[in-house]
Amino acid sequence: MRELFTEEMNKISGDLDTMAAAVKAAIDGAGKALLDADIDAAQSVIDGDIKIDALEASIIDQCLEMLARQTPVATDLRVVVSTLRIASTFERMGDLARHIAEIARRAYPESAVNPAIRDCFQKMQDFDSHTADELIQILKNHNEDQAVKLIEKDSQLDDLHTKTFGIVNADSWNGTKQQTIDAVLIARFYERIGDHAVGVARRIVFIVSGFDPSKDPTPVLAGGLDE
Amino acid sequence: MRELFTEEMNKISGDLDTMAAAVKAAIDGAGKALLDADIDAAQSVIDGDIKIDALEASIIDQCLEMLARQTPVATDLRVVVSTLRIASTFERMGDLARHIAEIARRAYPESAVNPAIRDCFQKMQDFDSHTADELIQILKNHNEDQAVKLIEKDSQLDDLHTKTFGIVNADSWNGTKQQTIDAVLIARFYERIGDHAVGVARRIVFIVSGFDPSKDPTPVLAGGLDE
Repeated sequence: MRELFTEEMNKISGDLDTMAAAVKAAIDGAGKALLDADIDAAQSVIDGDIKIDALEASIIDQCLEMLARQTPVATDLRVVVSTLRIASTFERMGDLARHIAEIARRAYPESAVNPAIRDCFQKMQDFDSHTADELIQILKNHNEDQAVKLIEKDSQLDDLHTKTFGIVNADSWNGTKQQTIDAVLIARFYERIGDHAVGVARRIVFIVSGFDPSKDPTPVLAGGLDE
Repeated sequence: MRELFTEEMNKISGDLDTMAAAVKAAIDGAGKALLDADIDAAQSVIDGDIKIDALEASIIDQCLEMLARQTPVATDLRVVVSTLRIASTFERMGDLARHIAEIARRAYPESAVNPAIRDCFQKMQDFDSHTADELIQILKNHNEDQAVKLIEKDSQLDDLHTKTFGIVNADSWNGTKQQTIDAVLIARFYERIGDHAVGVARRIVFIVSGFDPSKDPTPVLAGGLDE
């Protein structure tokens, strides 16, 4: 029974790794679509999202079957339930990357990004891309310290998000109305990708330690996802 | 064992009903805060969110304990896992109501809502409030038809969401930059509340029928949550 659990869980973990890699590719593609006004990159992210959705559905099915047939307890149960929830979170991260790609596609051949806000979005893009890389690593190494560091540095992304409102709200802002709308949405999507990454990192901490960092009295670790 | 399951599940269902009622109150409070520039209503929603978060944490704990101790299968397993996920979705709906209340609080004593967009936001508010009422009912009656109807009518909210962009992007729009930013965010928050309600309705269909409507080839039922 124990061996069967390990074998099946390895299969599901492999699928989750595949999903993480697909999400990372979607985030990178969305950045290329947005910042280089690259229509092919945009279309590729939009078309590719269906694969991420299918991976989520498959992982959830496998987890439910595991729960029903193998009735895991303790750490094993935490792993299965957390895997199921991480898959749903990855699916949402893929959707957000798709939303960014959709904005780039709609604006094409123009850029959706006004020059005044480009640097800020480049930083948010780099942040989310790097965070996705870290998630891929943490999923494999289950390194609690690295997960906690990822959770802690999310405030940097929040600062960038706040900064975008300052740029759009400044007298010097000369973007079109559509660029204003897009800037607010893009900033929100970037920020939400980061929030979901924090959610995944929290669930990995929970798998490793049985401790739910969202219940930590330390402010930086406390609080649920914000949407 | 079976009796114990029923007894414990009734307790958890009761907590989920309490959570649904708290979310409905948060949505109504957010609407009052936003549309009447009511600072007390805003503060009450913001302060009350911590209770919704605590309910989520408690329900998830109870579900995990159920899974570990009672090892439910078939319908019972679906109920427990779906309950856990519905609690997380309600938590996010509460966060979104809080975000709307926060925008109202920041704008006070001014209104965050430009008159040109007021009617649209009133309609989105009424839609979400009514949807929250329906969720409360469906949680109790497990009426699959009502759940499917709720899923289907979400397109009305999407239309209102699209309409807000048209208003903000029109030549006739005379809102301040801050009102533009707020309008884009508020519309997004209202739309997301509706999306999450659809997610809850889908999970109730899954509990009742064992059928996951997100895998339905019918377009209106297909597709995951969009964020």
